[in-house]
Amino acid sequence: MIRVSTKFSRPAPAPVERLGAYSSATIHEAQGRLGALDSAVKPVDHRMSVCGPAFTVQCAPRDNLMLQTAIAYARPGDVIVVSAGDYPEAGSFGDVLANACQAKGIAGLVTDTGVRDTEDLRALGLPVFSRSVSIKGTVKETVGPMCEPVTVGGQLVRPGDVIRGDADGVVVVRREDAAEAAVASQERVEAEEGYISACRAGKTVIDMCNLAPLLAAKGLAIDEE
Amino acid sequence: MIRVSTKFSRPAPAPVERLGAYSSATIHEAQGRLGALDSAVKPVDHRMSVCGPAFTVQCAPRDNLMLQTAIAYARPGDVIVVSAGDYPEAGSFGDVLANACQAKGIAGLVTDTGVRDTEDLRALGLPVFSRSVSIKGTVKETVGPMCEPVTVGGQLVRPGDVIRGDADGVVVVRREDAAEAAVASQERVEAEEGYISACRAGKTVIDMCNLAPLLAAKGLAIDEE
Amino acid sequence: MIRVSTKFSRPAPAPVERLGAYSSATIHEAQGRLGALDSAVKPVDHRMSVCGPAFTVQCAPRDNLMLQTAIAYARPGDVIVVSAGDYPEAGSFGDVLANACQAKGIAGLVTDTGVRDTEDLRALGLPVFSRSVSIKGTVKETVGPMCEPVTVGGQLVRPGDVIRGDADGVVVVRREDAAEAAVASQERVEAEEGYISACRAGKTVIDMCNLAPLLAAKGLAIDEE
Amino acid sequence: MIRVSTKFSRPAPAPVERLGAYSSATIHEAQGRLGALDSAVKPVDHRMSVCGPAFTVQCAPRDNLMLQTAIAYARPGDVIVVSAGDYPEAGSFGDVLANACQAKGIAGLVTDTGVRDTEDLRALGLPVFSRSVSIKGTVKETVGPMCEPVTVGGQLVRPGDVIRGDADGVVVVRREDAAEAAVASQERVEAEEGYISACRAGKTVIDMCNLAPLLAAKGLAIDEE
Amino acid sequence: MIRVSTKFSRPAPAPVERLGAYSSATIHEAQGRLGALDSAVKPVDHRMSVCGPAFTVQCAPRDNLMLQTAIAYARPGDVIVVSAGDYPEAGSFGDVLANACQAKGIAGLVTDTGVRDTEDLRALGLPVFSRSVSIKGTVKETVGPMCEPVTVGGQLVRPGDVIRGDADGVVVVRREDAAEAAVASQERVEAEEGYISACRAGKTVIDMCNLAPLLAAKGLAIDEE
Amino acid sequence: MIRVSTKFSRPAPAPVERLGAYSSATIHEAQGRLGALDSAVKPVDHRMSVCGPAFTVQCAPRDNLMLQTAIAYARPGDVIVVSAGDYPEAGSFGDVLANACQAKGIAGLVTDTGVRDTEDLRALGLPVFSRSVSIKGTVKETVGPMCEPVTVGGQLVRPGDVIRGDADGVVVVRREDAAEAAVASQERVEAEEGYISACRAGKTVIDMCNLAPLLAAKGLAIDEE
Repeated sequence: MIRVSTKFSRPAPAPVERLGAYSSATIHEAQGRLGALDSAVKPVDHRMSVCGPAFTVQCAPRDNLMLQTAIAYARPGDVIVVSAGDYPEAGSFGDVLANACQAKGIAGLVTDTGVRDTEDLRALGLPVFSRSVSIKGTVKETVGPMCEPVTVGGQLVRPGDVIRGDADGVVVVRREDAAEAAVASQERVEAEEGYISACRAGKTVIDMCNLAPLLAAKGLAIDEE
Repeated sequence: MIRVSTKFSRPAPAPVERLGAYSSATIHEAQGRLGALDSAVKPVDHRMSVCGPAFTVQCAPRDNLMLQTAIAYARPGDVIVVSAGDYPEAGSFGDVLANACQAKGIAGLVTDTGVRDTEDLRALGLPVFSRSVSIKGTVKETVGPMCEPVTVGGQLVRPGDVIRGDADGVVVVRREDAAEAAVASQERVEAEEGYISACRAGKTVIDMCNLAPLLAAKGLAIDEE
Repeated sequence: MIRVSTKFSRPAPAPVERLGAYSSATIHEAQGRLGALDSAVKPVDHRMSVCGPAFTVQCAPRDNLMLQTAIAYARPGDVIVVSAGDYPEAGSFGDVLANACQAKGIAGLVTDTGVRDTEDLRALGLPVFSRSVSIKGTVKETVGPMCEPVTVGGQLVRPGDVIRGDADGVVVVRREDAAEAAVASQERVEAEEGYISACRAGKTVIDMCNLAPLLAAKGLAIDEE
Repeated sequence: MIRVSTKFSRPAPAPVERLGAYSSATIHEAQGRLGALDSAVKPVDHRMSVCGPAFTVQCAPRDNLMLQTAIAYARPGDVIVVSAGDYPEAGSFGDVLANACQAKGIAGLVTDTGVRDTEDLRALGLPVFSRSVSIKGTVKETVGPMCEPVTVGGQLVRPGDVIRGDADGVVVVRREDAAEAAVASQERVEAEEGYISACRAGKTVIDMCNLAPLLAAKGLAIDEE
Repeated sequence: MIRVSTKFSRPAPAPVERLGAYSSATIHEAQGRLGALDSAVKPVDHRMSVCGPAFTVQCAPRDNLMLQTAIAYARPGDVIVVSAGDYPEAGSFGDVLANACQAKGIAGLVTDTGVRDTEDLRALGLPVFSRSVSIKGTVKETVGPMCEPVTVGGQLVRPGDVIRGDADGVVVVRREDAAEAAVASQERVEAEEGYISACRAGKTVIDMCNLAPLLAAKGLAIDEE
Repeated sequence: MIRVSTKFSRPAPAPVERLGAYSSATIHEAQGRLGALDSAVKPVDHRMSVCGPAFTVQCAPRDNLMLQTAIAYARPGDVIVVSAGDYPEAGSFGDVLANACQAKGIAGLVTDTGVRDTEDLRALGLPVFSRSVSIKGTVKETVGPMCEPVTVGGQLVRPGDVIRGDADGVVVVRREDAAEAAVASQERVEAEEGYISACRAGKTVIDMCNLAPLLAAKGLAIDEE
């Protein structure tokens, strides 16, 4: 008998919502270059975007029994995060389960295996991030942990951690760091907007990034044409 | 002297046409989870879709002599299926051959090597499924089998087998199974539409997938929050 | 002390401009099947297109100090070419640097590592060709060569060589061969247009590609149905 | 109900035995550069060597039920050939099954998935060729074809075809071509021995490979130092 | 300021020692098919074998500052486990650090990046498991967590968990499960020895694995020759 | 007509001989972390070792015409360096050419494609470094550059540059830097021997690598158990 519990702490809605306003890259940088999933985990379409607490589940490769179970127990707003052995040759999620997610208000899905029915996913507008698109079917044989820490895309994701995905990929924010990460992201956005305005106004990269002293300190001399 | 024959049995048009109405994933499931090419073989654009009997040909990697030959001998409605050693770094098919295909009424192309001139392929609307996009040229040196069984994307494809490709990938149906696969696909579509309607009407995944007894039989107990 | 010089010969503008009118695949073929970067180096969006002289720079993997430096010293119309160890898991270029490039009139970027902020790159319309899209941050630690020959995508690129990138990939033309490559490309385009017109007019591939004697010479006999 | 038959024609012992005296590379060349499995399928140890008729079986990835079944029904001298979806992350064969094979006189195993207990395999001296070594366990859930044609390492293998594996990899010879391939292999070995003797006696590669006219015909002129 | 602590609970020596008597594959199976690192993490030489508590550390890719730090703080018998972004193109560990480990009595090293000086590692007899062998140097720039949970080879490893590596790969056992895993491993070894003796004594796989009823239940009928 | 010249400057024998006494990793570090080929280029056997001036040649993938030509023109002591498109599925070099090399006194071979007859290569003792081992045959169709700069394993190699390969991989030293690299390598070896002696005598890594101030400067505080 394996016993799992769906009880875990979700972060307060406010910082999750705020994090949804920043890009995955911004949040990754703002929280100290942490939490980025491997680049192989990508949105089905570059217009997809998601932010919400992780509802984690461990599947065996080529087996989606626990993913179905996760959909049954996840709450509105959750992002289902599936660790399935980094296996590209299985389509573990398609139009039926996508409709089930959408009917329940589940925010999206992140997985290290494949999905299918991608034209339906685009039409539904459900944000899905996967390692691959595969038509190959899965079995429903293996039970396993749910709402436990999992590894996906080389990152540890715990239930309730915040998942933010967009065109560039996916980042995870520890739930206890969500508010702080949102503040740091806002600061970074403002700094970047300043840099971009300066660029547009003609400021050089040398000045903007303060390159001259840095390069000199590292021993690079440039003979400019 | 190598002797090849272009004589092979094509399936009746009716089941091929019917199969074209179902997705590659549906057909793969409906015929018993068989026939799915590896996920690396993908459409050049996710809006591409094809269904037709396979005209098979074996090329040496980085050599498209036999592909040109195949285009010369394929019939309207055929899908040319090229096995070329699963080699990504060659663009064996581009705008000239695509125009030749379209002029002849060839339905599309599936290959385990690369193609190029992809903007032209999009503009022409010719459905092309390949392992890669590569600008690297090919030679025209090596003769080989045509209208013989080939392996592509890990699957055996025989001349006259039905090829169905869409946004999610490519599936092959044995020509003698085409009619049966179409019937099974229709049944699956109707079942899935039922599931989706049930989801939309608020039925839970637990009930819909009959999860509770399955999980219990496998020894999973869930403490729900 | 490492000493670099930004002095190098750029090709005359006229052949560069002319090369921009031909596809990367056409130029690759026209110059004798040379200069094609590996297929892993792809545009962020298939509508991106670039042509210009290479401003080369060598970065350490996961380090964009020299890329920033290159942006500071490149000239309007240059294509920055970054060799960074063929490393997919770093986003070395994003919205700030893209705005800096655009403000300076830099024509585009080619790199064998990752980039990020891809929706911003699409919105800006800056053509960027990369091995991957990754949100992972880079450090600014390592100085290295700039305006020296580099290897990227398996090709040698020297400063001032012409870079042409489009939906299919990227080709490099040696600066001393630019004019000749443009002439050869035009000839190839005209030949291909002739082939395409012939196809459209009903000429067979057998005649067009002169297949019959070639296959016979190679010992292939075809029993046509 | 799936019905399989273990009845298939094995080749005569004599040509199989003769093929075992030639290397996999020699046979591949001698039969016209056909039948080489992809280089990813490698011996567990470079001293392993096998030759025998294929007993084919199709497994689901990460599932060795049909492999166990194959061992039960294969005959002494057979080489079991497993197609399992080209999946590296499963150890489908280890010390228990290796002992079972050896007790029955099975000649060896070729698979496109992983194996484990490799030190035991070395100690037993059972030749095993696999895509990977993995400790991850398999399930016993899925039935499938046995003694039917399968694809493995990009090649079609039919029951009774001859499998030859050694340090360099694996080649398949169609059973009806076994005798002819053995003759052609002997001719090739003799030719190669002649070349090697000539090398040792000081003959140049230019003469031995008749390079001078070939290069001249292809337009290469060499200014020798 | 980042603050790390080297305080963590190591498992009792007895179960660790006992686990060292079982193979990585046996332990993986015995604890319920859990804990296997990806097959890409392999011993430098197939004769290497290690068992001990994990001393975990997180490095930036191509940066071994924290690995040096870990060697300074690890205790005799520990296995240093390095998570470094699954990056093959860096040799983060070589003869100097290997001698430092051996002088301190560190039991071995497991890493998802590369190592070098492999002939020295063989001569020293220090068991090292890595994703690759690379001569490329690392920098010493980035501080990070130590003695915290890390992900390596797709598995979560916590400080004090037991690491067992051998020719086939690496498995992690949660420290609280070490004693139970050792018991289960012994049971599995005994069962396997029974199977092997039965094989040797002529028992069939059908009987040994109880295949007949299993296959019948799954609907497979076999026509034996 | 393509015209190639075999005239190029080889480095003086003395520094080449001296470099052969240092490992590839040592030389890579000693010359400033430059010149390391990608880790995919590996010796056929870990006991192989080579040092000599590069005789470079460019082959088309799956085509060894120019490699044969190179063997004909290379001099005793040269290391033939083959750039062939980083293609694993071809065995471009085997026992005949290996005997030809050995008869001429060619020092070894480095290639980014495959080789075969590896047991013969071991028996001959000819050091060969390749991306793969493949039995698949090559054609002899394409002429190309020889004794020109080539890219192999992500590095630029010019004729006459020094190639050093051993168990860990391959490094290239620019011929004009050979003497300086040998001196720097000797200094590094002596420094490393000092470190190793200090380790053996009980000096800590903290002292040896001067870790304490470095970590403090980077803001890492360690609470030691």
